[in-house]
Amino acid sequence: MTGKMDLQRSSASTDDLPLGERAMARCDWLGHAPYSEAADQLTRRFLTSAHSAALDSLAEWMRGAGMSVRLDAAANLIGRWEGQDPNAPALMIGSHIDTVRNAGRYDGALGIMLGIDCVTALARAERRTPFAIEVIAFGDEEGSRFATSMTCSRSVAGKVDPAALQVKDAEGVSLASALKAFGLVPTDLSEASRKPGEVFAFLEPHIEQGPRLEAEGLPIGVVTAIAAQKRLLVRMTGVAGHAGTTPMHLRRDPAPAAAEAILAVERLCAPGNEGLVGTVGRIAAEPGAFNVIPAAVVFSMDIRAETSKVRDAALDEIVSEIEAIAARRGIGVSIALLQDLPETPCDPALTQLLEDAVRSSGVNPLRLPSGAAHDAMVMAGLAPSAMLFIRCKGGVSHNPAEAVQAADCVIALQAMLAFVDAIEEKGGS
Amino acid sequence: MTGKMDLQRSSASTDDLPLGERAMARCDWLGHAPYSEAADQLTRRFLTSAHSAALDSLAEWMRGAGMSVRLDAAANLIGRWEGQDPNAPALMIGSHIDTVRNAGRYDGALGIMLGIDCVTALARAERRTPFAIEVIAFGDEEGSRFATSMTCSRSVAGKVDPAALQVKDAEGVSLASALKAFGLVPTDLSEASRKPGEVFAFLEPHIEQGPRLEAEGLPIGVVTAIAAQKRLLVRMTGVAGHAGTTPMHLRRDPAPAAAEAILAVERLCAPGNEGLVGTVGRIAAEPGAFNVIPAAVVFSMDIRAETSKVRDAALDEIVSEIEAIAARRGIGVSIALLQDLPETPCDPALTQLLEDAVRSSGVNPLRLPSGAAHDAMVMAGLAPSAMLFIRCKGGVSHNPAEAVQAADCVIALQAMLAFVDAIEEKGGS
Repeated sequence: MTGKMDLQRSSASTDDLPLGERAMARCDWLGHAPYSEAADQLTRRFLTSAHSAALDSLAEWMRGAGMSVRLDAAANLIGRWEGQDPNAPALMIGSHIDTVRNAGRYDGALGIMLGIDCVTALARAERRTPFAIEVIAFGDEEGSRFATSMTCSRSVAGKVDPAALQVKDAEGVSLASALKAFGLVPTDLSEASRKPGEVFAFLEPHIEQGPRLEAEGLPIGVVTAIAAQKRLLVRMTGVAGHAGTTPMHLRRDPAPAAAEAILAVERLCAPGNEGLVGTVGRIAAEPGAFNVIPAAVVFSMDIRAETSKVRDAALDEIVSEIEAIAARRGIGVSIALLQDLPETPCDPALTQLLEDAVRSSGVNPLRLPSGAAHDAMVMAGLAPSAMLFIRCKGGVSHNPAEAVQAADCVIALQAMLAFVDAIEEKGGS
Repeated sequence: MTGKMDLQRSSASTDDLPLGERAMARCDWLGHAPYSEAADQLTRRFLTSAHSAALDSLAEWMRGAGMSVRLDAAANLIGRWEGQDPNAPALMIGSHIDTVRNAGRYDGALGIMLGIDCVTALARAERRTPFAIEVIAFGDEEGSRFATSMTCSRSVAGKVDPAALQVKDAEGVSLASALKAFGLVPTDLSEASRKPGEVFAFLEPHIEQGPRLEAEGLPIGVVTAIAAQKRLLVRMTGVAGHAGTTPMHLRRDPAPAAAEAILAVERLCAPGNEGLVGTVGRIAAEPGAFNVIPAAVVFSMDIRAETSKVRDAALDEIVSEIEAIAARRGIGVSIALLQDLPETPCDPALTQLLEDAVRSSGVNPLRLPSGAAHDAMVMAGLAPSAMLFIRCKGGVSHNPAEAVQAADCVIALQAMLAFVDAIEEKGGS
């Protein structure tokens, strides 16, 4: 109903809102068809008509802020606000415009809208920074259409795999075909890459997608690093048997062994130092019959921390504990490492400037790691990068219930403007 | 290869084996096609050609022992060895001839073969007991063809549901049609029922299907009761979240909660008093993704003991513990009772005679419950029933690796003969 009413109004209705609050309202504006593929939920995947419609709005809003607008070879929309020196490297601000299926409205989009509001604020103040500011809307961070993700920021950072063009979506459409249908010439994604010296810093404002800021009562926070992550699969094998005929003391049952292991993951990650978290998200007993003592129990472990060192120290303890449990119970154990992503620290100097900017906005600057991956991980390969987190309700994300507060968005914008000031004071790039 | 060689010999090759050992060899004989539906494994389901072929052999062996043979209305094969008084109630000995898919050779069949050897031994000794002895081969205990199980012993005991005739197998063939194809007139399964006074006792020799006798170093044992059983499904619900962004202390994770619950099942059943066992055979986390803290973990509980009282006392403790775990962790819990089977005690007087018989065979008579269900549960509704367990290797059953020792089968037969003697001394029926 809200959606229908919105469609009868113009997005200009958001124009008079306070900046920051306007950024949030524009995310809401894009929360429905035609900016969503679905009528009853928000799904905006890479290179769909919903993506195209959203870029039309973004381009209009960017131009309204005084930016020139272009679409790069990887379907990133870039608005550029010129600085005093057109040849000076630019500050880039942005995030992704695509969403997961049945998404919230702020994951990604809010960072772009805040970038536009930041430029609008500078323009309204008749400021002209020494450096240009570019606002970028990455097309594919979520990987909700093609199996690859972050193709767009990888293209900008010059790290894209040429084979990515051949990846197909669930309907068998290749990325190359989808780019062509989007009006682009899909020859070389690396045409979107920026040359060294064109961008001196990247700032990604993004909702936290976790509950820490809410728990601390803080509207915004400063990201220290994107977490190091390992994914493992543990298989504990015992001896299957008849549930009715095998006495307890003669069992070699992998179910309680796995239970002890799951509690060990929780206990050894509980200190939570340096962003340490451990999750068992998948558990299955085999053969999985009511009346059969399992032959095996398989469970996943996702272990993350700000640094590989902290993550691996915890994981070593967990593995030792699992091996001790297995040995004590006469249970076999095998542990397979499925994914190993090292940490991506945010740039220390840039992050210090962001911390100072947050403090100058009247907010105690909590430093926190990002447990989730972001485009800033990739952009860190091109230029010093920093991330500003905005509190989200209950830490809920990837869900229609995703929510932020207008006042928090206003504070985020203040911090961003203070960050731009600090960079300028420090001598720009 | 052994199978092929067997087919070229005659089953008469088993005739010269010591009785008891012969019972085992005859089970082996029936371990292959045409007594199995499959060429490479033993599968002998109710009313198949494999069942029919096995009954042909059984009938031959029964006649060879001096028995008259008939097939009742429920496809039970019954061999009768007349006693001194043809009107006196009979002692019935037997078990089932059907198997699960990819079965072992002794589960069920061994009890029938030992019954035949028991009669053979009496006949060879030119004994004539005051009462008749009937050896019965129940057609369907496992329920591996039709969803119902123990249809055949239920028919004999007069406890069959008339609707059972309409139950269909996986190919859509009704039990009525299958009985007709087997050469029977499928009008009323209760025609197979025995009148009160026709049978004064039922003895079921059966492999243990558990490891207790092996652990105690005993060839045979005396069953006290068939266990009381409850099946439950526990659902613990927490709050799903991003595995990377939710700090440990802010989680409400059902996985470690379920882990504590699974350990509680083990701990509270560990005393193992009066056959108490508790099994968690099925475990699943929802949604079951590596990077998502589960919204829910669901697991099964199978709790058994010799008596409902012992079982329910343990279950009460387990449920209290699970509720305490859930309360402490802020986790929701629901527990559904899916099945509640009370215990079936074996007849105390008959079991005492069997215990004495085991002792007189030179074996320390271990009394143990049966955790698995058996035809004797049903036959107990017709006449006092007792069960003799025979040691099986590693407690393995429902598996081609199922194994018994010839010497144990010889001792089982000795105990059965001593049991017959004791009944006769006590004045028969």
